[in-house]
Amino acid sequence: MTTPPESAVQSPIASKATRFARTRATTMSLVSPLSAEDCQVQSMPTASPVKWHLAHTTWFFETFVLGRDPAYRAFRPEFKDLFNSYYVSIGEAWSRPRRGLVTRPSLAEVMEYRAHVDAALEKHVALGGVDDEERALEMWTIELGLAHEEQHQELLLADVKHLLAQNPLFPAYAPALPSAFGAAPKPRWHSFAGGLVEIGHSGPGFAFDNETPRHKVHLEPFALASRPATNEDWLAFVEDKGYARPELWLSEGFEVVRTQGWRAPLYWIEREGRWHEFTLSGLRPLDPTAPVCHVSGFEADAFARWNYARLPTEAEWEHAAQSLPVRGRFADTRRLHPERAPAGDDGLVQMFGDVWEWTSSDYAPYPRFRPWAGDLAEYNGKFMCNQRVLRGGSCATPSGHVRASYRNFFALDTRWQFTGVRLARDAQ
Amino acid sequence: MTTPPESAVQSPIASKATRFARTRATTMSLVSPLSAEDCQVQSMPTASPVKWHLAHTTWFFETFVLGRDPAYRAFRPEFKDLFNSYYVSIGEAWSRPRRGLVTRPSLAEVMEYRAHVDAALEKHVALGGVDDEERALEMWTIELGLAHEEQHQELLLADVKHLLAQNPLFPAYAPALPSAFGAAPKPRWHSFAGGLVEIGHSGPGFAFDNETPRHKVHLEPFALASRPATNEDWLAFVEDKGYARPELWLSEGFEVVRTQGWRAPLYWIEREGRWHEFTLSGLRPLDPTAPVCHVSGFEADAFARWNYARLPTEAEWEHAAQSLPVRGRFADTRRLHPERAPAGDDGLVQMFGDVWEWTSSDYAPYPRFRPWAGDLAEYNGKFMCNQRVLRGGSCATPSGHVRASYRNFFALDTRWQFTGVRLARDAQ
Amino acid sequence: MTTPPESAVQSPIASKATRFARTRATTMSLVSPLSAEDCQVQSMPTASPVKWHLAHTTWFFETFVLGRDPAYRAFRPEFKDLFNSYYVSIGEAWSRPRRGLVTRPSLAEVMEYRAHVDAALEKHVALGGVDDEERALEMWTIELGLAHEEQHQELLLADVKHLLAQNPLFPAYAPALPSAFGAAPKPRWHSFAGGLVEIGHSGPGFAFDNETPRHKVHLEPFALASRPATNEDWLAFVEDKGYARPELWLSEGFEVVRTQGWRAPLYWIEREGRWHEFTLSGLRPLDPTAPVCHVSGFEADAFARWNYARLPTEAEWEHAAQSLPVRGRFADTRRLHPERAPAGDDGLVQMFGDVWEWTSSDYAPYPRFRPWAGDLAEYNGKFMCNQRVLRGGSCATPSGHVRASYRNFFALDTRWQFTGVRLARDAQ
Amino acid sequence: MTTPPESAVQSPIASKATRFARTRATTMSLVSPLSAEDCQVQSMPTASPVKWHLAHTTWFFETFVLGRDPAYRAFRPEFKDLFNSYYVSIGEAWSRPRRGLVTRPSLAEVMEYRAHVDAALEKHVALGGVDDEERALEMWTIELGLAHEEQHQELLLADVKHLLAQNPLFPAYAPALPSAFGAAPKPRWHSFAGGLVEIGHSGPGFAFDNETPRHKVHLEPFALASRPATNEDWLAFVEDKGYARPELWLSEGFEVVRTQGWRAPLYWIEREGRWHEFTLSGLRPLDPTAPVCHVSGFEADAFARWNYARLPTEAEWEHAAQSLPVRGRFADTRRLHPERAPAGDDGLVQMFGDVWEWTSSDYAPYPRFRPWAGDLAEYNGKFMCNQRVLRGGSCATPSGHVRASYRNFFALDTRWQFTGVRLARDAQ
Repeated sequence: MTTPPESAVQSPIASKATRFARTRATTMSLVSPLSAEDCQVQSMPTASPVKWHLAHTTWFFETFVLGRDPAYRAFRPEFKDLFNSYYVSIGEAWSRPRRGLVTRPSLAEVMEYRAHVDAALEKHVALGGVDDEERALEMWTIELGLAHEEQHQELLLADVKHLLAQNPLFPAYAPALPSAFGAAPKPRWHSFAGGLVEIGHSGPGFAFDNETPRHKVHLEPFALASRPATNEDWLAFVEDKGYARPELWLSEGFEVVRTQGWRAPLYWIEREGRWHEFTLSGLRPLDPTAPVCHVSGFEADAFARWNYARLPTEAEWEHAAQSLPVRGRFADTRRLHPERAPAGDDGLVQMFGDVWEWTSSDYAPYPRFRPWAGDLAEYNGKFMCNQRVLRGGSCATPSGHVRASYRNFFALDTRWQFTGVRLARDAQ
Repeated sequence: MTTPPESAVQSPIASKATRFARTRATTMSLVSPLSAEDCQVQSMPTASPVKWHLAHTTWFFETFVLGRDPAYRAFRPEFKDLFNSYYVSIGEAWSRPRRGLVTRPSLAEVMEYRAHVDAALEKHVALGGVDDEERALEMWTIELGLAHEEQHQELLLADVKHLLAQNPLFPAYAPALPSAFGAAPKPRWHSFAGGLVEIGHSGPGFAFDNETPRHKVHLEPFALASRPATNEDWLAFVEDKGYARPELWLSEGFEVVRTQGWRAPLYWIEREGRWHEFTLSGLRPLDPTAPVCHVSGFEADAFARWNYARLPTEAEWEHAAQSLPVRGRFADTRRLHPERAPAGDDGLVQMFGDVWEWTSSDYAPYPRFRPWAGDLAEYNGKFMCNQRVLRGGSCATPSGHVRASYRNFFALDTRWQFTGVRLARDAQ
Repeated sequence: MTTPPESAVQSPIASKATRFARTRATTMSLVSPLSAEDCQVQSMPTASPVKWHLAHTTWFFETFVLGRDPAYRAFRPEFKDLFNSYYVSIGEAWSRPRRGLVTRPSLAEVMEYRAHVDAALEKHVALGGVDDEERALEMWTIELGLAHEEQHQELLLADVKHLLAQNPLFPAYAPALPSAFGAAPKPRWHSFAGGLVEIGHSGPGFAFDNETPRHKVHLEPFALASRPATNEDWLAFVEDKGYARPELWLSEGFEVVRTQGWRAPLYWIEREGRWHEFTLSGLRPLDPTAPVCHVSGFEADAFARWNYARLPTEAEWEHAAQSLPVRGRFADTRRLHPERAPAGDDGLVQMFGDVWEWTSSDYAPYPRFRPWAGDLAEYNGKFMCNQRVLRGGSCATPSGHVRASYRNFFALDTRWQFTGVRLARDAQ
Repeated sequence: MTTPPESAVQSPIASKATRFARTRATTMSLVSPLSAEDCQVQSMPTASPVKWHLAHTTWFFETFVLGRDPAYRAFRPEFKDLFNSYYVSIGEAWSRPRRGLVTRPSLAEVMEYRAHVDAALEKHVALGGVDDEERALEMWTIELGLAHEEQHQELLLADVKHLLAQNPLFPAYAPALPSAFGAAPKPRWHSFAGGLVEIGHSGPGFAFDNETPRHKVHLEPFALASRPATNEDWLAFVEDKGYARPELWLSEGFEVVRTQGWRAPLYWIEREGRWHEFTLSGLRPLDPTAPVCHVSGFEADAFARWNYARLPTEAEWEHAAQSLPVRGRFADTRRLHPERAPAGDDGLVQMFGDVWEWTSSDYAPYPRFRPWAGDLAEYNGKFMCNQRVLRGGSCATPSGHVRASYRNFFALDTRWQFTGVRLARDAQ
């Protein structure tokens, strides 16, 4: 078990207070277009109600920061189990698929809960001083709590989108998007020589335990596509009967296609012979130039095979991304939908933002991985099976949240996240 | 197919307007203790969100009354399918188990929908005149719409109770109930000679099609218990291991007991060795004197067998009830929970109100039954299989809604309605 | 609880021995076209392996007759639970859906088991004497055991048919049937005046407890079709899109149609635009003149509604059948498939044999019904819910097994039994 | 896509004929203790009937070898789909979970099918000559067919064991095993320096495509336990409540524990307070000294964590195994159950045979992996997701079948294979 990295200790207190306030306010702003009803409903067992996200991110600070302060009085003691997600060391979490049944506390009460915890936490931060280990750990835990809240900001958007997509009236969460589309740049291959490289996080700056330790990996020469595949690229796959040809698919993937009746990405909807797309701004004609989004890992894999290509490994992806600036279309653009690649850039584009990129790598511990100490050991490690790693962040990821070493992970059949695909291939 | 009974034609217009306003207002009053979140959630596939009840009862008037008026403009045309329950002749109803996913329209919009339809309907009623068949049919349909709304008032209460019972904090919908309990009168047997009797509705006054036609039935001599079984009676069954003795149960019933893990009525909760009961007023110690409530037909049947008795047939029940006044504890008492039988009454008590009484009769068409004409043929007839008849109304039934010939019906494993049991036996 | 009816006491011993030998031999002859593999497999949870039928019918005699004799030594004590069907008073029966997993004992061992029990039972029968109550009960129990074995003979045929129908090669159990078809007589209506009639078994002769007691029922005037509906009749229903019109169906029935994808009776198979039928003699072109077979109660009900008719109640059916001889095509014809109605008969034809006829009556206890005493109370009574009564026997029923008062029963969605439909309607 | 490796071309014809005859005879000998019933039943969807294994291995030779010979006449053309496992390029395989329903062809007919194909294949082999590419491919395909048949020999044993374990009488397939147990040697750690190593198959000798190509992997220093964990080791885990402590488990693994009610390895059975084990020789007291067997990957992972250790990666395992002779207890010992490690051996023992060893490696394509060409591309590649690699073979694996580079793979919740666990840990 590890102690928090030194880096966290050094972040200046003042900026932490600001960053805390800003992150919490961002969450509130995401909720502003939603009614109490919108915030209540859980549209499937793997999604959560918005109200739950609001409460759970608050619970996280209450439990792991304030809970260590004997002087702190819990807002309501019964929230300890009610808004626990999965920390068995903390207590018995309320059943996940039944989160949507809890209509009380109301949204308004949850907002009070947020305010209560915010006030208490701000006092803690204002105390200043990082002179002892206990205090350093607290500051690091707040940093973690902010990264955690950012993760839930993205989950919240994906869950809201899924909820509204269940509604036959296709309501909008955000202002309308443009409906005139230009042309996407042609993709090109960028080659990398491989060899014995290093990936994983090290050095200053916050990172999750699953990004560590930095370690050596041997890579054969490979190439990456300059941009993610677009809706137009995907349409060619659909029209070539890609969803009906088992030879393109992993066996388990084709079984899912068959039993779920998949014939296009999630949220593609055919209306009078033309494809539309449900976005957080409602239904609109499919933008052929935007990166394809809401495809599962199974679809990404089959699409790659159909292209006589493959998905990148996470090591290939990170090796290629390490030297790039972390710039791209994130949630702060407020478009909440992927868009056309910029023209005129010779290098790899859209590595960060727009869509999460499926890799071929199973989500597994890095060599010599150690989970965080104590209760937070449960944060990542216990999910390291039957999932695939995704990289780079999306249009729904908060700006500043991801980095080259960042590992997101979902099961291969997941489609409701903002997930796309960048092709890779072997090189000489 | 039948035309509406003459009776409906004769109900005075003025009282219809009043009754309409009062019934609609009652529904609104039932909703007043609930938040938008409470009104949104569907706690199981066979329950409906309160918001849906509010909209569907409105849809019923809009579709079957206003919809026949070419001058009427629908509030929102897309509600035609969205709030249809099961009328395939009207259109394709929105999937029942997915009602809770529709967060938009909001509760506020549904309230506007109610107001819009109320205003239009009041104008129709005020027009007066029952001078033609078309107009008479309209008046009858309004009467039906009110009876329909009353049915949904009770369903709404059962659904809210089920929803709140899913919440680990056991919130209350209604003010606290008393927690001091007296003693219930001892039950006695009342005998009936039987012979060729008549049951079913005839004559003036509204009735559902499933109560008709009045017809002859031959009954052997029988006896009914003077009052429904109480919680105390049921406790003896529980303590005699009634839930663990397959020989007491229908085979299918015991399979449900086993797979669902039933060991007491729904909403009985053991806390530190004592039985409590979840009520619409929250959790409280079990009242031993009140009629047992929230038992399935399977449990009622096993309990009767354990008592060396049986459930009454619906013909026996109706024959016994025909001569009694329709008086009892209905929803207008605002207790919303069954209570102890009155002392000092020599006859059958609590035949009406308190708890619906399971009969041994399958829900089947009466001889020469004809469903209503047109779209309303779907109201009752298509549900006549795999359900049992219940009689007498409950503490959640609107006062004035039931009568001796009234037939309620649910599957044998249903427990979330306000259902209890009155014993019967053969007599000489 | 009742003692066995006097009638059983009076059946002459000699004929009992003969009847026992003949019935047991008939079972063996039914198995002769089957391999050990055919006898092993359980094709669905509600079917049983043939080997199980062979063992269970033997177990019945061993348990209820020989088991009362202290001198009898069980063939293998572990069969007591292994071949118990559902008698909880006897012990814990082996899980029904897992019967097909028991490959040992082998078919050969089960045959030895049969021989062992046959020998012991023949000795018991040969003892003669019915002079005391104990002995009379034993003779009656043997009679019951034979009726029980006959029931399993029919179940065995239905289960074998279902098993072979799962095989993509469509193998045959019996010799080929003719494939030239004549014409079925036109159906006519036969009217009955109704009134206060009596149904149910009384008097000498074996009957199941569920056929008793004889009791009064009041019937309105009604009419029955002279013959069951034919495949040709049903084809008209199919071609009129009967399976796609929800207004013809019980709501629950149409849900089954939709989720199961029903579009014709079970075992109808379309090949190159023509309907075929899987029979125990393999696949052959559909015989338009034969009674339609392997339809569920839901289908029967919808078909009747499409005909502006209804299904008979069981009381109507029995009242009409009481005066008819119990003659018809039973399993002893060895055709094991229903056939065209005889021409030139003015009355009701095919009331017995060919196909079981669905009634509209739920399977319920008759007034004052008492199950048999002791362990055998479980024979019938505990299944009296969520099933419908069928009458008259089929081409797979042993000759001599049924009578006018005989009640068969299955759930409304059952199709693998030899079930058809005779229409009824109200009369003046 | 690749052509067959040159190695296959060089295997001498004579030995191929012998090896073919011997492998096919071994399969027959495995079936000899089984009845036709035993060979018919499919005890769960992921198991197959023995009869199916017999037919499918034959189908493999018929399809991929004889099917290329225009002169060959298929035994029965309808077997092409019936005994196809999962090759969509060949045709539509008969539904996997319904394999057990096919009682015809009988076992005897399948034996004829085997003889027919054996005779035809022996003729092909005898033709001699590997002088052209076509012929070389054929010889290689026969080699593959033999490796394929060996895989099914092990599956057959695991499936038979599972089937017999469903039988409440616990019948035996093989002669009794000893029931006196000595003591297992203490485990020690063996360290490896790691660095840039190579794994994967290359050079002469048959290997599956998934073992190729040989490639570089970077390993940190690590250590392996000298022997697999024993039942005694596992008992300590059980007694320390290992199955009730979620912190030891992958989250998904603990969910399986909870929903499946796991509390010990599959086939451990508690009788009167003592643990027994179901073996192919029937039920016997648990051998504390034998390697634990029939544990899932989830259990292996939790057990390792409880030991403050981890599972080896497949690269670690292969690196350690590369220098060892492929010796161990395989199926030719006829014990069909793992046994105590040999004493007095200083090195790694039982790396081959006894039990398959779970690794922490997801089953994924090696860098630059190419599936075999044509139809056989489906052999391995399409299963490369949501499975873990196992190494080393078991007591049910045919001798000669595995090698250091051999990759077996199953989902993490699989328990019916002969699977155990060897611990690993990081080293300096």
